[in-house]
Amino acid sequence: MDVLVPYDTRDPKTRLGPFLTAAERRSLARAMLTDVLDSLSRVGVEPTVLATEAVEAGVPVRVDDRPLTPAVNAAIAGRDGPVAVVMADLGLATPAALERLLTAEGGVVLAPGLGGGTNALLARHPEFRVDYHGVSYRDHRAAARAVGAAVTTVDSFRLAVDVDDPADLAEVLVHGDGETATHLRTLGVEVTTDGGRVAVTRSAEKSGETG
Amino acid sequence: MDVLVPYDTRDPKTRLGPFLTAAERRSLARAMLTDVLDSLSRVGVEPTVLATEAVEAGVPVRVDDRPLTPAVNAAIAGRDGPVAVVMADLGLATPAALERLLTAEGGVVLAPGLGGGTNALLARHPEFRVDYHGVSYRDHRAAARAVGAAVTTVDSFRLAVDVDDPADLAEVLVHGDGETATHLRTLGVEVTTDGGRVAVTRSAEKSGETG
Repeated sequence: MDVLVPYDTRDPKTRLGPFLTAAERRSLARAMLTDVLDSLSRVGVEPTVLATEAVEAGVPVRVDDRPLTPAVNAAIAGRDGPVAVVMADLGLATPAALERLLTAEGGVVLAPGLGGGTNALLARHPEFRVDYHGVSYRDHRAAARAVGAAVTTVDSFRLAVDVDDPADLAEVLVHGDGETATHLRTLGVEVTTDGGRVAVTRSAEKSGETG
Repeated sequence: MDVLVPYDTRDPKTRLGPFLTAAERRSLARAMLTDVLDSLSRVGVEPTVLATEAVEAGVPVRVDDRPLTPAVNAAIAGRDGPVAVVMADLGLATPAALERLLTAEGGVVLAPGLGGGTNALLARHPEFRVDYHGVSYRDHRAAARAVGAAVTTVDSFRLAVDVDDPADLAEVLVHGDGETATHLRTLGVEVTTDGGRVAVTRSAEKSGETG
């Protein structure tokens, strides 16, 4: 199956800006890409990285410097078979969760992301196109219906967590065991709790802003 | 199977305080309980509500006004068979997600909640006890190991979302189709987006603070 992993190298993860330097955010994005590619490899998939510039990823890379939506739609246009799109920032994605996506029935299979997003999808209908702006989960449901494709969903916590905000780092630290979690620990990012929902803190001696 | 649904009637959902009045938070908590009980009913389970005071719930109610952890541990102590504990604030829980929990293998089955919590669990080991304080997902893994129980997890977005913060309301509005979502719409709570992760807003004419 064709699987695309969009990967934007340009100033990634800006919402982590108060917490990580630009260089640290780039290395975090790279660690997450590594984890996603590794999990896909473990379910027997060789994906194509859809990158904004040439990168070395150990798998084929398609370069398209347009924004996410037109770049993905250009990549999926004209394909015969099913195509999946898996975001590169799924720091908790496991082979089991990805296998559930790739083997789910349905003309369009959606894995919702926190906050109304679509973190992964599988399209078997040749006319389906993506639109990642706004509440993309709703828009993708509508887009599937518009082309007559049956929509199903994959109910996965591990596919629902994309890493955008500091709170998402806590999820990776609690539940992750890949490069991403290791990388965060190397940066001194730790889980903290005041008795309610956990958050993250950073040990001062490892802060990239001061070190 | 014995299934407990802890339900605290005392000033529920305080983190929604800036957004909903105390009466609205109570009615929201009640709508979520209704949805959870309805989903359990659809998988053939008659749960027991473990409430802090006598409530009418259409199913058996056990009253215990202690905090969550001792109340649950008192309720599960001395049982022969498996027992499940499902939080009452899972506004997105579906029969399918709950069935995955209740049929999963393992001595202790954990459904992680966002922020390190444990939103639902199934214990087949008679000595397992809960501790919901702090990063309970980690603590429950350790507690299961301590009694020699094999730990498995249920990877479910719908069981991972418990409704504590305004952002969680957006999840219910985007993905929910039960009483909880209906109730939020009645209160004028709506999804909004600025292009990034969605949030919620409230139409001024329906605000309980001013109406």
